[in-house]
Amino acid sequence: MAGPIIALTTDFGWGSHYVAQLKAVLLNSVPDARLVDVAHDVPAQSVLDGELLLRSISYIYGPGSVHLVVIDPGVGTPRLPIAVESNGTYFVGPDNGLFGQLREDPDARAVALDKKQFFREPVSNTFHGRDIFAPVAAELAAGLVLDDVGSPLDEWMAGSLVAPVENDGVYEAALIGADHFGNLLTHLHARNIMDNPCIFLDNKEIPFVSTYGEASDASPVALIGSDGYLEVAVKNGSAADALGSDWRTRRLTVSSKG
Amino acid sequence: MAGPIIALTTDFGWGSHYVAQLKAVLLNSVPDARLVDVAHDVPAQSVLDGELLLRSISYIYGPGSVHLVVIDPGVGTPRLPIAVESNGTYFVGPDNGLFGQLREDPDARAVALDKKQFFREPVSNTFHGRDIFAPVAAELAAGLVLDDVGSPLDEWMAGSLVAPVENDGVYEAALIGADHFGNLLTHLHARNIMDNPCIFLDNKEIPFVSTYGEASDASPVALIGSDGYLEVAVKNGSAADALGSDWRTRRLTVSSKG
Amino acid sequence: MAGPIIALTTDFGWGSHYVAQLKAVLLNSVPDARLVDVAHDVPAQSVLDGELLLRSISYIYGPGSVHLVVIDPGVGTPRLPIAVESNGTYFVGPDNGLFGQLREDPDARAVALDKKQFFREPVSNTFHGRDIFAPVAAELAAGLVLDDVGSPLDEWMAGSLVAPVENDGVYEAALIGADHFGNLLTHLHARNIMDNPCIFLDNKEIPFVSTYGEASDASPVALIGSDGYLEVAVKNGSAADALGSDWRTRRLTVSSKG
Repeated sequence: MAGPIIALTTDFGWGSHYVAQLKAVLLNSVPDARLVDVAHDVPAQSVLDGELLLRSISYIYGPGSVHLVVIDPGVGTPRLPIAVESNGTYFVGPDNGLFGQLREDPDARAVALDKKQFFREPVSNTFHGRDIFAPVAAELAAGLVLDDVGSPLDEWMAGSLVAPVENDGVYEAALIGADHFGNLLTHLHARNIMDNPCIFLDNKEIPFVSTYGEASDASPVALIGSDGYLEVAVKNGSAADALGSDWRTRRLTVSSKG
Repeated sequence: MAGPIIALTTDFGWGSHYVAQLKAVLLNSVPDARLVDVAHDVPAQSVLDGELLLRSISYIYGPGSVHLVVIDPGVGTPRLPIAVESNGTYFVGPDNGLFGQLREDPDARAVALDKKQFFREPVSNTFHGRDIFAPVAAELAAGLVLDDVGSPLDEWMAGSLVAPVENDGVYEAALIGADHFGNLLTHLHARNIMDNPCIFLDNKEIPFVSTYGEASDASPVALIGSDGYLEVAVKNGSAADALGSDWRTRRLTVSSKG
Repeated sequence: MAGPIIALTTDFGWGSHYVAQLKAVLLNSVPDARLVDVAHDVPAQSVLDGELLLRSISYIYGPGSVHLVVIDPGVGTPRLPIAVESNGTYFVGPDNGLFGQLREDPDARAVALDKKQFFREPVSNTFHGRDIFAPVAAELAAGLVLDDVGSPLDEWMAGSLVAPVENDGVYEAALIGADHFGNLLTHLHARNIMDNPCIFLDNKEIPFVSTYGEASDASPVALIGSDGYLEVAVKNGSAADALGSDWRTRRLTVSSKG
C-alpha cells in the first residue's frame, strides 16, 4: 500500500538547502510518503504565482493528499500559520492569500496552527517551512485530522486571483502568468465565454482558435487552455516574447460576437 | 517489491503545473510507481534535444520501465500518439521523430494509441501529455502490453539524429548539443574513430585526449564522452563559451592519422 | 518498511542525462531506495558550493542514509574516490575537499574506494559518478559497511569552508554564498556572536535584527539564519542585488558592543 502524497510548492529555489531540509522533516516523520516537487522556482515571495499554480492542482492528488505550500514573505511577522481542508485534501502554509481560492468551497475549513507540540523546536525566525509547516503537513499525511493540529478559524485571507471584471457582457481579463512556452494565462474561464467571442488585445482583434496548430501565422491568438481558462499564444513561438516584457500590462477584452 | 519506473522527459518547464498534472495522472493510476524526472527543461518544442537525451537513457531503467516523453509541437494536429516497445522498455509520446532511433532495433514494435477507453476525458486540444500519453504510460507500467493500448503501426517517424557523413574515411560530425559544463556533444561514436585520429575544428587541428585533465591548456580538445560519443571540451572551462554562441555551426572533421 | 535514503548533490545540471544515469544505477541496484534530489545546479566544478550545501544537510536524513556528492573537476586525474562515515551517515564522492568539514567529527572514518568488483565496468574516464560513486553508494544504502567497499584512509582533504578569522574579539566574516532570495550567507556561527553585536559591512554599520520583517527599510541588515549562521539580507528584496555583483569581495566585521 503506497504512502500518502505530499506535494511541495515553494519559492526556495531548486537545489536550495531549504528544500532538502523540508524533505528531511517529511521523510523522517513519514518514511513512506510520496513527495511530489510541484515547484521550487515560484518567483521569490510571489503569492500570486502560488495561487495560480494551486488553481491548476489543488485537488489533483485526491483525498488524503497534502499540499505543503511555502511562499512566505511575512515569516516572522504575526501572519498566521494555517491548515485548510477542502474536498478531503489538506493545505498547509502561511495565511497570506495563498489559499484564498479555497474559500469558494463552502465546506472548506481552516485551523490556525497553534499546537506547538507538533513544531520542530527551536522554531527559527526565518524558516517556518521547516519548523512549523512541514512537521504539521507530515502529521496530516500520517493520519491526523484538521482539528488535531490547530484551532478553528472563522476565515482565512482572500487572494489576489480575482474573477475578471464584466461590464455589459464584455469581460476584461488580465494576463496573470506565463508558462514555459510563453503562453500567457488569464483567469477568465471558458464557461464565461460565448461560442463565438470577439477578443481584443489592446485595440487589435485577435483570432479565437481551438488549438495552436490552427493559427495561420505567428501573430497572437486566443484559445482555451488545458485547465479551461482563456490564454494567449503564438504558434511555434512565445506570446510572452511577442508581446514584450510589459505583457502583464496589456489589456485583453472578450465579448460575444452576437 | 518496488513499483514500476516511469521516466518523464518533457519541455514543460520545471515547476510547471503541467508536470504536476502528469504526475497526478500517473500516481492516481499506479500508486506505487517510481517516477524519475529525467528532464523538464528540454528547449521548448525541440524534438532533436529529446532524441539526444533518449540516446543516452533509452534502456537504462531496464525491462518493464516506461519512458513518457512529451515534446509535442504538433499537439492538436493529426500527428499520431504512439507507444513503442524496444528491449522490453516502453516509450509513449507523439510520433514526431522523438522515437526515431528505436527503429534501429529490428525487434522494436509500435502502436497507434487509438483506444479511447484509456484516455482521460474530455481530451483537451493542447495537453495530450495529461490526457492521452500519461494515462497510457500508466497502463503499460501497470502491466498492460503494447497491443492492449493501440493498433499496430508498420513504421514510425525517423528523427533528426542521423549518423555522421563519411567520405573516404573522413567523418564530418555535427555539434548537436551541450551539457551543463559546456561540453559539446556529437553523434560520432568511438567505434567509427581510428586509434590515432586527426581532428579538425574548422581549419585548426585539436588534440585528441582521453580525459579532461590531460589537456595542456584551455584550448578545445576532443575526447570520447561517457556514452561513447566524440565530444569537444575545454579543461576547467566551457567549450560552448570558448567557441561562441554559434558553436552549432562549427565544422568538426575526423580522419585516421594513418 | 521504507527503503534507504540516497541524497544526490551534483553539478550535472537539472535535466542532464548524467543525473538520469546516476538514478538508473541506484534504482537498478536498490529498487526501493528513496532518492532525494538535493541539487543538480551547483555551479560547475564549485567544490566550495558543495561544501556549503553539505554544511546544512550532512546529517538531516539520519543514520543509514547516503549522500552521493559528485562535484568532480579532477575526474580522470589521480584524486581519490572515497567514502566517509560520520554519525551513521555515509558520504560518497571525490576526495577534493567536499567532505572536509566531516573531519570535525572525531569519530568520522574514510576509505579509499579501491574494490573494483563494485564498479560499473568499463569505468569511463569522465564519469566516475555513474561508474564508481553511484554503484558504491548503492551498496552502502543496501547494507554494506564502510570497510566492505574500500581500504582505510588516515585522512582526507580539508575543504575551503574555514572558520572566520578572529582578532581581539573582532570577527571578519566572508560572504560565501547566496540563496534564491539573495540572502548572503557567512560561515560565522551564532555561538561566536555576542548578544549585542556591532556589525559593519565595509565601513558602514548595519542593524542586527532577529527577523526580516524587523528591518525598517530596504537597507541591508544582519541576522541569524535558520542554520545558525550570520547572514546579510534586505527586507522584501535581494541583498545580492543590493550589494552588487562583487558582493563576494565585501568585508563584514562583527564585534561585541561592550
